[in-house]
Amino acid sequence: MNQAPHVSAAAYVGAPTGPRAVEPAMRRALALAELGPAHGPNPRVGCVLLDPGGRTVGEGFHRGAGTPHAEVAALAHARSRGIDPRGTTAVVTLEPCAHQGRTGPCADALVDAGVAAVYVAVSDPNPVATGGAARLRAAGVGVTTGVLADEGEKLLRMWLHAVRTGRPYVTLKLATSLDGRVAAADGTSRWITGARARAHAHTIRAQVDAIAVGSGTVLADDPSLTARTADGGLFEHQPLRVVLGRRPIPDDARLRGPGGPLLHLAGDDLDAALRALGLREVRHLLVEGGPTLATALLAADAVDELHAYVAPVLLGAGATAVGDLGVTTIGEAARFATHEVTRLGDDVLMVARRARPAQPVQATQPADSAQTGRPTHQPTQEEI
Amino acid sequence: MNQAPHVSAAAYVGAPTGPRAVEPAMRRALALAELGPAHGPNPRVGCVLLDPGGRTVGEGFHRGAGTPHAEVAALAHARSRGIDPRGTTAVVTLEPCAHQGRTGPCADALVDAGVAAVYVAVSDPNPVATGGAARLRAAGVGVTTGVLADEGEKLLRMWLHAVRTGRPYVTLKLATSLDGRVAAADGTSRWITGARARAHAHTIRAQVDAIAVGSGTVLADDPSLTARTADGGLFEHQPLRVVLGRRPIPDDARLRGPGGPLLHLAGDDLDAALRALGLREVRHLLVEGGPTLATALLAADAVDELHAYVAPVLLGAGATAVGDLGVTTIGEAARFATHEVTRLGDDVLMVARRARPAQPVQATQPADSAQTGRPTHQPTQEEI
Repeated sequence: MNQAPHVSAAAYVGAPTGPRAVEPAMRRALALAELGPAHGPNPRVGCVLLDPGGRTVGEGFHRGAGTPHAEVAALAHARSRGIDPRGTTAVVTLEPCAHQGRTGPCADALVDAGVAAVYVAVSDPNPVATGGAARLRAAGVGVTTGVLADEGEKLLRMWLHAVRTGRPYVTLKLATSLDGRVAAADGTSRWITGARARAHAHTIRAQVDAIAVGSGTVLADDPSLTARTADGGLFEHQPLRVVLGRRPIPDDARLRGPGGPLLHLAGDDLDAALRALGLREVRHLLVEGGPTLATALLAADAVDELHAYVAPVLLGAGATAVGDLGVTTIGEAARFATHEVTRLGDDVLMVARRARPAQPVQATQPADSAQTGRPTHQPTQEEI
Repeated sequence: MNQAPHVSAAAYVGAPTGPRAVEPAMRRALALAELGPAHGPNPRVGCVLLDPGGRTVGEGFHRGAGTPHAEVAALAHARSRGIDPRGTTAVVTLEPCAHQGRTGPCADALVDAGVAAVYVAVSDPNPVATGGAARLRAAGVGVTTGVLADEGEKLLRMWLHAVRTGRPYVTLKLATSLDGRVAAADGTSRWITGARARAHAHTIRAQVDAIAVGSGTVLADDPSLTARTADGGLFEHQPLRVVLGRRPIPDDARLRGPGGPLLHLAGDDLDAALRALGLREVRHLLVEGGPTLATALLAADAVDELHAYVAPVLLGAGATAVGDLGVTTIGEAARFATHEVTRLGDDVLMVARRARPAQPVQATQPADSAQTGRPTHQPTQEEI
C-alpha cells in the first residue's frame, strides 16, 4: 500500500489537525469500534482519518480476526472516496500494531500512507503487537497517547484483562431464587427464572468466546450450551463449549450436537485450565455452573464479573448456587461492585464486578497467535 | 355545619358538573389523598369540590385519625375562601362514611352543605362506615361510583386488604447476599447490605403501623425496631413494635427503649396473632425476621409483599433467609409478582407481591374503633 491507488487533489501536506478536533473524532472512533464483534481473539478498534481542517475523510473498524485492522480499513475507505490520506491525522482507539499479521503492521501502513500524526486512546499491552507508537515516531510521525483513555479502557476491558493476565475474563452466571437456590429439593429447576431472563442469557452466550460448565453438570443436566435466538434457532456465533472436571462426557451428550466446538479440560487445576483457555485466546469465558465449579472459581478469586439473574421465588430447600467458600465471618465475604441492574420481566439481573483489581500479568502470549485468531493447542486437552 | 359561615355570591344551585370535569378532579383528589400519612388506621382520602362550571372551589384530604375527613376539609376550604358549597359537585376517592366518628358522618356533612352530586372512586368495604352512598341518595344527592376505581384501589390497597380480611397487609423484609444468606457462618451479619439500603428500610419502617420480629431474633440480635433518620434520630412516627413467639423479652432489651409501643404476642398461632393485630387496626405490618418467623409466614401463605434487599455478596455458608417451606419440586415454589426494582447503591430492592389474590373476609371490624384510630385491646396480649 505504498502507492495510493487514487491520488486526489486533496493530498494533505503540512500541519496536522489540532487537538480540538481530536476528542470528537476519538468518540466517533470508539463508537465505530463497538460495531465490531464482542467475541473473538482480537480487540475491537475504530479509526477516523481527519484532514488538516478537522474534517473526516475516512473511517474504519475491525470486523474480527482475518479481516483488515481498523487503520487499514480507514485508509482504504478514504482512498475509495478518491482521497489520498497523505497529511491526514489518524485517530485510533488502540495503539497501531507493529507486528506482522495477515495484513502487515498497521504502523507501517500509516507511515507508508503519509499520515502526519496519530492520536491513540489506549497503548497496546500485547507483548507481541506493542511498539507501534515507537515505530511511528521513528518514521517522523507525531504520536499522542491517552486521548479518552478511560473510555478506551472501558471498551477493551475484557480484552485488556485477558492480554494482561494471560487468562480469560471470567463471567459467572447464576440464576437463583431469592433465597439463593438453583433447584428445588427434588432437583427440578425448570424454570426458576422467566422467559425474558433466559432469552437475555442467550444473547450473552452469543457475545462470549467460550462457555464452561463442570463435568457434573453435564451428567446432571445434559446441557447443549448453544446460543439460541428467541425462536429456538442458533445465533451465527456459537461459543467454544468447555467442560471442566474429570468425569467423562457421555457419547450421547447434547454437547456433542450442533453448536460451538467442544473442549474437555479434564484436570483439577482451575488455574491451569484458565491459562490453557488464555493460550487459546479465549478472552471472555462465561461460566454457567454448576455449584461445584462456581464455588471453586469464587474460592480461587477467579471470578471477574457476576451475572446474577434473581427470580421473585422462594424455595426454602434445594441446591444453593454456591457452596462453602471458606468464609466464616461477614468481613471475609466475596463482595462485588454492582455495575448494572436490569429488570427482565419478573426477574432482575445484577451485573457486578470484582471490587479489587485483576491479577497482574502472569503469562505472555504466544508470538505466532496474538491478534491473529489462530488458536494454540495444548497437548493435554481432549479436543472433541 | 348546616349554616355556612360565609355565604358568597357563588352559591351554586342547579345542574351539577358534567362528567367531563370529573376525571381530572378525581386525579387531583387521588394526589391529595397521597399527601395523607401512609400509616394509621384510617384510609387516605382526597376530595375536590367543583362548581357547575367545573372549576375547583375547595380541596381537602385526611391527615390521619382524629383530624377532619377529606370531605369536611374540602367544605371548610371552600368556606374559608368565601364560597358557599351549595350546588357543588364533590369528587372523592372513597365513598363518604355514614358513621359517627369524631367529626360526624361525612355523608351528612355533604347533604347539609347542599352538595348537588358526588363522584366516588372506591366504595367503602368497611362494615361500619359503609352506607354513605345510600344515605346521600336518600337525601336526593346523585352518587356515581367507580370513577378511576383502579387508581383508587391502588392507593388504598393495604387498607382495603386489612379491612376486607381482618388481618394486616404483611410485608416481609429480607436482606440477603446473592446466595440467600442473612449471616455468615459465625452469625455476623453487619452489614450485608449497604448504607443506602438500610436507610431505605428505615423510611419503610416510618410508613408502617407495626414491625414484627420473632422472639428468637430479640434474643439473638437485640434490635431496637425504631424508624431512624439518616443522622440516627427518630422519625416522628414510630411503628408499634411486635414480638411474636413464646420466648420472653429480656428486661434490658433495646425494644424496651425509646421508640413505638411494645406488644408481645406470645402464642404459636400466627393466624390468631395477625387477627389480633387486625383488631388493633394495624393495617400494614412489616416483618423483619428472623428466618423462623419468615418461614412460618411464607408456609402459611400469609405474606402479601416481599421487600428483598439483595447485596452483590456471596457467603457460601451461614443462615439462610428462609427455612423449609414444604416445597419439594419447582412447581410448588412460593412465587411472587415483581412490582418494582430499585437500585440502592450496590444493592437492589425487589418489591414483589403475592401472585394470587388475598384471602376473603374472615373477620369484621369492631364497631367502636373502625376509622377512629382507637385501638381495641386483646386481653391475652402482654402489653409493654
